[in-house]
Parts: sequence; C-alpha cells; structure tokens
Amino acid sequence: MSDVRKTIAGGATWQEVAEDRRRHRDATVAESRIDAPLPEDLSIINTDVEELVKWLASGEWSATIVVRAFLRRAGDAQGMVNCVAELLVDRALERAEWLDRYWVEHKKPVGPLHGIPISVKEHIAMKGLDLNAGFVSWVGRVAEEDALLLQILWDAGAVFYARTTQPQTLMHLETSSNLYGVCANPFNTSLTAGGSSGGEGALIGLRGSVLGIGTDIGGSIRSPAANNGIFGFKPTSERLPTLGWSAPMEGCEAILGTIGPLSTSLEGIKLFMKTAVGAKPWLKSPNLVAMDWRDTTGLFSEKKLKVGVMWDDGVVKPHPPIARALCKVIDKLQKSQKVEVVDWIPKDHGRAWSIIHDVTSLWSACAERDEYRRQYAELWNERGDVDVILCPAGPGVAPKLDAARYWGYTSQWNLLDYPAVAFPIHKCVSVRKDGDAAMTDHIPLEYIPRCEADKDNWSQWELYGAKGYKGAPISLQLVGRRYDDEKLLAALEVILKEADLPTASPPTRPWV
Amino acid sequence: MSDVRKTIAGGATWQEVAEDRRRHRDATVAESRIDAPLPEDLSIINTDVEELVKWLASGEWSATIVVRAFLRRAGDAQGMVNCVAELLVDRALERAEWLDRYWVEHKKPVGPLHGIPISVKEHIAMKGLDLNAGFVSWVGRVAEEDALLLQILWDAGAVFYARTTQPQTLMHLETSSNLYGVCANPFNTSLTAGGSSGGEGALIGLRGSVLGIGTDIGGSIRSPAANNGIFGFKPTSERLPTLGWSAPMEGCEAILGTIGPLSTSLEGIKLFMKTAVGAKPWLKSPNLVAMDWRDTTGLFSEKKLKVGVMWDDGVVKPHPPIARALCKVIDKLQKSQKVEVVDWIPKDHGRAWSIIHDVTSLWSACAERDEYRRQYAELWNERGDVDVILCPAGPGVAPKLDAARYWGYTSQWNLLDYPAVAFPIHKCVSVRKDGDAAMTDHIPLEYIPRCEADKDNWSQWELYGAKGYKGAPISLQLVGRRYDDEKLLAALEVILKEADLPTASPPTRPWV
Repeated sequence: MSDVRKTIAGGATWQEVAEDRRRHRDATVAESRIDAPLPEDLSIINTDVEELVKWLASGEWSATIVVRAFLRRAGDAQGMVNCVAELLVDRALERAEWLDRYWVEHKKPVGPLHGIPISVKEHIAMKGLDLNAGFVSWVGRVAEEDALLLQILWDAGAVFYARTTQPQTLMHLETSSNLYGVCANPFNTSLTAGGSSGGEGALIGLRGSVLGIGTDIGGSIRSPAANNGIFGFKPTSERLPTLGWSAPMEGCEAILGTIGPLSTSLEGIKLFMKTAVGAKPWLKSPNLVAMDWRDTTGLFSEKKLKVGVMWDDGVVKPHPPIARALCKVIDKLQKSQKVEVVDWIPKDHGRAWSIIHDVTSLWSACAERDEYRRQYAELWNERGDVDVILCPAGPGVAPKLDAARYWGYTSQWNLLDYPAVAFPIHKCVSVRKDGDAAMTDHIPLEYIPRCEADKDNWSQWELYGAKGYKGAPISLQLVGRRYDDEKLLAALEVILKEADLPTASPPTRPWV
Repeated sequence: MSDVRKTIAGGATWQEVAEDRRRHRDATVAESRIDAPLPEDLSIINTDVEELVKWLASGEWSATIVVRAFLRRAGDAQGMVNCVAELLVDRALERAEWLDRYWVEHKKPVGPLHGIPISVKEHIAMKGLDLNAGFVSWVGRVAEEDALLLQILWDAGAVFYARTTQPQTLMHLETSSNLYGVCANPFNTSLTAGGSSGGEGALIGLRGSVLGIGTDIGGSIRSPAANNGIFGFKPTSERLPTLGWSAPMEGCEAILGTIGPLSTSLEGIKLFMKTAVGAKPWLKSPNLVAMDWRDTTGLFSEKKLKVGVMWDDGVVKPHPPIARALCKVIDKLQKSQKVEVVDWIPKDHGRAWSIIHDVTSLWSACAERDEYRRQYAELWNERGDVDVILCPAGPGVAPKLDAARYWGYTSQWNLLDYPAVAFPIHKCVSVRKDGDAAMTDHIPLEYIPRCEADKDNWSQWELYGAKGYKGAPISLQLVGRRYDDEKLLAALEVILKEADLPTASPPTRPWV
C-alpha cells in the first residue's frame, strides 16, 4: 500500500496530518478484510504463543492462515477500541508466504518463532515506515532500518503485521494523541486501555495479538497489561536492545527505558525473552550486559519460594478490587507447601516518586537515585531471603479515561531497575459490585487520604465505585531483584500454580 | 596517632592546611621507622601477591612481619618520590596481630587475602580518616565507613597500611596537589609518576606495595601503571563497587568511573578481581551487574588467540620507544602457534576524544557516545573473531613533569567501557639511547604532526629524545570487549607467555 504522507514540514496543518494518518490506517484495516473470515479464525486467535509455535512448526497451520486470522481480528479490534496505528497486510502476507515456502522446502521451522505474528508499538522502527512516536510534527520521519530487536525476532521467524498506538511523548499511562485519538479499554469503554503501550494492551486484550512489543520507563508495559488482563514484562534495563526506537528521552540515563513483551500467556513472555537474549544482542548493542538467559530449572524445588507482599506503597492506597485480589492470592499461597509469604513494608516510596519527578539537576538526581537504590538493596539484604515482591500493578484497575495520574506502583521499580511483571488473575477476581462495594472490612468507611495523589485516587473510587469499574480485569505485579529476570518469571510460574491462577488469558473475550 | 586537622572551615589558610597535612604524613612515616629493618625485609617486598598468599596462609611469614616490611618500604618510597598521603601504622599492626592470632587459633587463613598488605588511593573512604580527594578545601571531611570494596577485601583478610596521593580533582594524568606537592617517577625523577592514581603507581613501582587500589575514568589506573612498569587493570564499569569513593564527578553517568587493582604481577590482579567479584558486591551495590567472575580455563586451548594490533590511534603518534615495544612483542607473537596477529585500524578515535571533552549538553553527548559505541561494536563484529586489541598505553613513556596532555590512548576505552589492562615489558625494552634514538626506520626523520595534540606530543620527543626519558619503563595496553574482563586477563596470560614476557615486575628495583 502506497503511503505518501502529509506532513507539517510539507505545509499541512496538524488536522490535515492527523486526518491523513487516520485515512491511511483505515485503508490498511479495510485491506485486512478483503478475504472472508475462515472457520479456523476463532481457534487461531484463541491459541496462545506456546501452542501456536507447535502448530506452526509441525505445519498443521500455515503462517499465512495464522497471520490472516490475526490481521482480521486486529482490524476488528481497531474498530472496537482504536488501538492500531496501521496494519501491514502486504508485508505480513509476503513474509508468511516466504515462511510457508521455507517450511515446505525444509520441513522444519526457520527458528523458534516460526510464523508467530507479533504486534509492535509504533515508535519502534520498521524500515521504510513512518516513525512518529505519537507526535504530529514527527510524521514523515521514516525509519532507515528495523530496530535491532525486530531484526532478532525476524531471524527467529516472526511475522510483523500490526503497529499500535501510544500517547504523544510516550510519557503517560493512557493512550491518546492528536494523531490517532483515544484508545479505550475493551472491557469497559469508559476506562483507559493504559499507556504508553496502550495500543498493544488493548489489541492483545482483545486477542488481536497474542504477543506484542511495548516499552516501559515508568509503567508503560505493565499499566496496559494490567488494565487489559494480560501479561506484561519489564526486564532489567540493559538486557534487551532498545536500538532503533524513537523517543524524546533518547540519551537520558537517569532512568533507562526498557523494551519488553506483552502476551496472553506467561510462556509467551518466556519464549520471547529466551529468543531475544539468546541472540546475544550485546554484540551489536554494546550498552547491554553480556549475560545469557539463564536456566531456572529446579530453582524453587530445593528451597521454598519466599514472597514478600506489599499491600500499599504508603503513598497512594489501592482501590478495594486490588486489595481483594491480593487477599485472594495470599490466602491460596499461605496454604501452599512450596511458598512462604511475609509482609513487605515499603521503604520511602514517596521519595522514589519525587526523585523520578525531579530532573532539574541531573547529576544530583542520579546520585540521589543511586543512594536510594543502595538503601533498598540493603533493606532487601536485611530482610533475608525474600525472592520476589508481590504488589499492586497500580492504585486501582484501569482508570476512567483521562483520570490516570499516579504511576508510583510501577515507576518505583523503574527507579530501582528491578524486573517486574504484571499478570492477570482472571476468573478469580474482577470488579464486581457485590464483591468490592461491600469490602468495608479492609478499608475504613471514611478513609482520610495521606497526600494529594492519594486523595485524587481515592476520590475516583468514591465517585465511581464498583459499578463504575464493572468488568475491568484485575491484575497484580511481581517484582524481582536487579538482573533476576529469569528467577522472577520462574517465581511467577510457582505462584500461579500454587494460587491456582491461569498461566494464560482466557480464550473467550468480550465482544467475541 | 591523633589527627586533629587544620581546615579551611576552621579558619586556616590553604598553606596552613597543607603544611598540617604534610606534618601529619611525615609523623606517620617516622612512626613506621621506629622498629629496625629485619633481614627478611628485602625478601618480603620482592615477593609478589601470588607467593605472598602462600607464605602467609602456611604461617611461614606472619601478617605482622609482612606488613612491617611494607610499612618501612612505603616510608622510604615517600622519601624518594612523595607518593604517600599517610601511613596507617597503628591500624595495620593491630589488624596484622589479629590475623596472626586467628591463624594460631584456627591454623588456617581467614580468607584468600589473609595478611596481604593493600595500599589504597586516598579518595577511597576509610572509616574515621580524612577524605579530601586532593582538595585543600575538603580536608576535614571524615569518612563514616569503609568503602564497600575495602569491606570486601577486609573480609578476605587484607591489611590496609598506606594511603596514596592523587591530583586535585582527580582529573589529570599526573599527580600533584597543593596539599601534598608533586609525585615523581622513581625511574627518572624528571618524569611524572602518572595520574590520577600516581601515588599508587610510584609506591608499587618501588615495591612499597605489591597490590594497591586505584580509580580510572580516563586512564587513571593505566597511566600510572604504565609509567611505573607495573600491571594496572580497569575493569568494565559496573563490576566492582565504587560505593564510598569521594570524587567531584559523583552522579555523572556519561562516562562511568571504575575502581581497580594495580599490582607487581598479573596473578595479583586476578586474585584481586576473583575475590572482589566473588563476594557478589551487586547485592549491596545495586548499580553493579549481577555477574559472577567466570572461569576461563581452556578458553584459548581450543582456538587460537586472535590479537588486533593498533600501532597508532590516528590522532597522536606514539614516541619511538612505544613503537619499538610493539614491534618486539609482535615479532615474538608472530612466531607463536597459539596466537594470530592482525592489524587493528582505529575508528575515528578523534571523535571519541571530542565526545569525552564535551559535557556541555549531557543528553546529546550520551546519545552520541552510545552511537559511537554501537559503531565500534559493529566494527568489531565485522572484523571477525578478534579477541583483544594490543595497543600503546599512552603516546610515550612517562611524560616529563607537567607535560602530560593527551589521554586518548586510555580514555578511548573508558568511552567505550571496554576493560583494559596496562602491562610492563621489563627487560625486553626500556628507553635506551642506542635503541630508540636510532629508530628512524619506523618514523620519518621529519614527522609532520596531524593536529595540535600530536604536535605537542611529538615536540616532547624531539626536545628530549631517548636521553631525556632514559630508564623509563615501557608498557603496553591490552583491551577487550565490554564484560570480557576474564577473557582479557586470560588473553594477557597467553600473550606474556608467547612473547616471552615476565608475568611480574622484576624484584630488583632502582634505589634498592
């Protein structure tokens, strides 16, 4: 599909640029619908990555049939919640057909991700395509080559078929821009899909994708994952290459942004990480740590997994659905023989929040950050052998549109550069009037907020209550020590099993 | 020894503060001479770390007898070249006596460094002692606790007995300050000992220490090591903890400073690194990479070690003694069955030099640095399987006092954050009139400099020639890829063996 862009530099108004981009997007969506849906479509989009790779590797499903199903579903998702920047119909089909020919010829997959469709946040470069990062004024910037991570996934057999939206500047936990408008939450359209990887979150939440790539400097993977009931992983900062993303904070070292996967399943996250780190990206991107993806077999069979639980960060109190989710999970874990649960008292998270917001004096802010990191490490050492911290992924479920304000539950771990994963607890808990409205035993009826941010968050709950957030997925977050990425995912596996939680999002979704 | 300091804050003039500090230093030196020398002294100070640990672990030598010998020798060294900030006679003897009692009681060493005397650059904190980093105005700042690295070495059995000088600000490849004056090169006192770890370099060059700790952000370990004919290792930046050093660039992330060992032997360097990294310092200093010290057994037995040789950085041409040293080493290596030698053409080292000097716009400088790092990695990938780069450690041997100007041969690797080790080639080559003055086959008689820095460096050679640098040790530098610290040291071992070079400084030293 030809794509001659209107740009600010070319003399267009911002309205004309935005209208042109939307027209282009809608044209790609229309293109995805040229072929009629197939009976297999629903089976395909309801299959998680770990199963999809098997079907594709065995030749049971062709790459073409798989990507066609996801293209159609992504087109539908765009119509539902406005999460897509553009679909890549021609490219994806060409790639899938090449993979299918490869399979016929060699009778084996090209790599561990043979034929897996992967959706990608727009500000991650794809050769020859626009790279606007949500800025109207950046429309017309064209990527000269694929981002390094995409090159690696391509070599492993991936099919890129959809580019998803983000907020202008990338620095928001919601997703709206003058370019593409607002992305809503598929479970309750009065709520936000989250941000800044909100397009990814909503698309995967609707199973328009089962594996996507987002970026996170303060919660931008975990917020949309939590809001849409999927898995989202922010690795330690220097393990996956960010080469080839386009963002206004390039060169900022105070808090390093990370790139990472969002998926309908934990196995999707693990396969992504293993494949990407396994390609030794540090040889091409020397800012990365030269550290292989480590095997965690047997890690928690010899000793109990020790989980610290942080109920509240001491700054902004989580809404009742979150507290309830924690209660339910902890109840289960306390009955497990494999897990030990202890309380995790937060250490001055308010200070972290203020460091994150102060970049006026970069050197002193970095020094203060390092001192805070050191103290947090000391705290962890003193508390003995806690393996991971279980905590909220945010101060509530998906906020109402335009109401997302407090990032402390996610940005805390960016400041510390700890790996963190948001995960859904589908079926166990979701926002229900009968459950959460009555939850007065965990919170005083008249809660007195501790600060402005706490007041703002609590006022949202008082205003809307369980009814206002009805249907919203409830998610939690698991956090590990720096570079304990592999251990963190292994711990999550134990927790999901022991707390009887699903390791993947359920196949049936709203509006299916 | 009581130490009530005169300070600027206390109303003293800078001259009074400096005089007071020197008086204190001289008093500690006098104290080290209270006991008469012993016959074993010369044997002890001529023993390298790897042998010293054996004698101490077996109880053949007591920690007390060893540290007394080094205290006396350090006192002498101070008289010769002015390299000491203070000796720690009481502390060191108390510690040594405790270790000796431990040995008598348990019949085994307390750790892998049992009784090893370690000298320490002054700006690395020692509890209760002054921490002035060479600034007169900082005199009176007292460290509240030992630097983390010192805590680790202490737990391994080290004895801290000497603190050495550095230039004010730490940012110079010579060592002089208003506080302590000028530190000269023991091999030729018209030359500099180097900097900023110049006190360490000179002290170890005189065997007033066989293992010391320096810091390096642009060559500050490798310059004094090269100038004094000892081994000096700058590790990749986030492997050893810098917690507890005092430096004006704290919080600067553009180029991370590193801490590392200087030693009379390669084995001393290796034992230091293995002990320090083996203590898992990342658990207390979370800015570090959680990476164990990796075993390199057999690394170069299966495949040949491939060495790239950089003769010149393309900016400042090395003096003839350096070129001659490279020639001699390469001649030997080309005859080795275990080593393959190829040329390493430098990539735009002038650009690196300018990035290092530009901190006016930190974010854009960081972005430019990252792009340069990426291009250099790409270059290395393209050049195939080169393991290490062999190159000058500086554009000449130790410069004349006050003549050190160009840091590019060392700061290049700080910018890239590559591990690098300076090593001496004693006995093979040193600056001799007959050797270097006649070396006209490698350089045109009338060399036309490429830039101001090149002109300045070359004019020094024309002015002083071989005669002016007579006796100065000649050293080279070996450089590895980021995080290849272990591999680098293993490669150096192969090179020393194959080029028939000593793995330790010779026992007999000038003025012994």
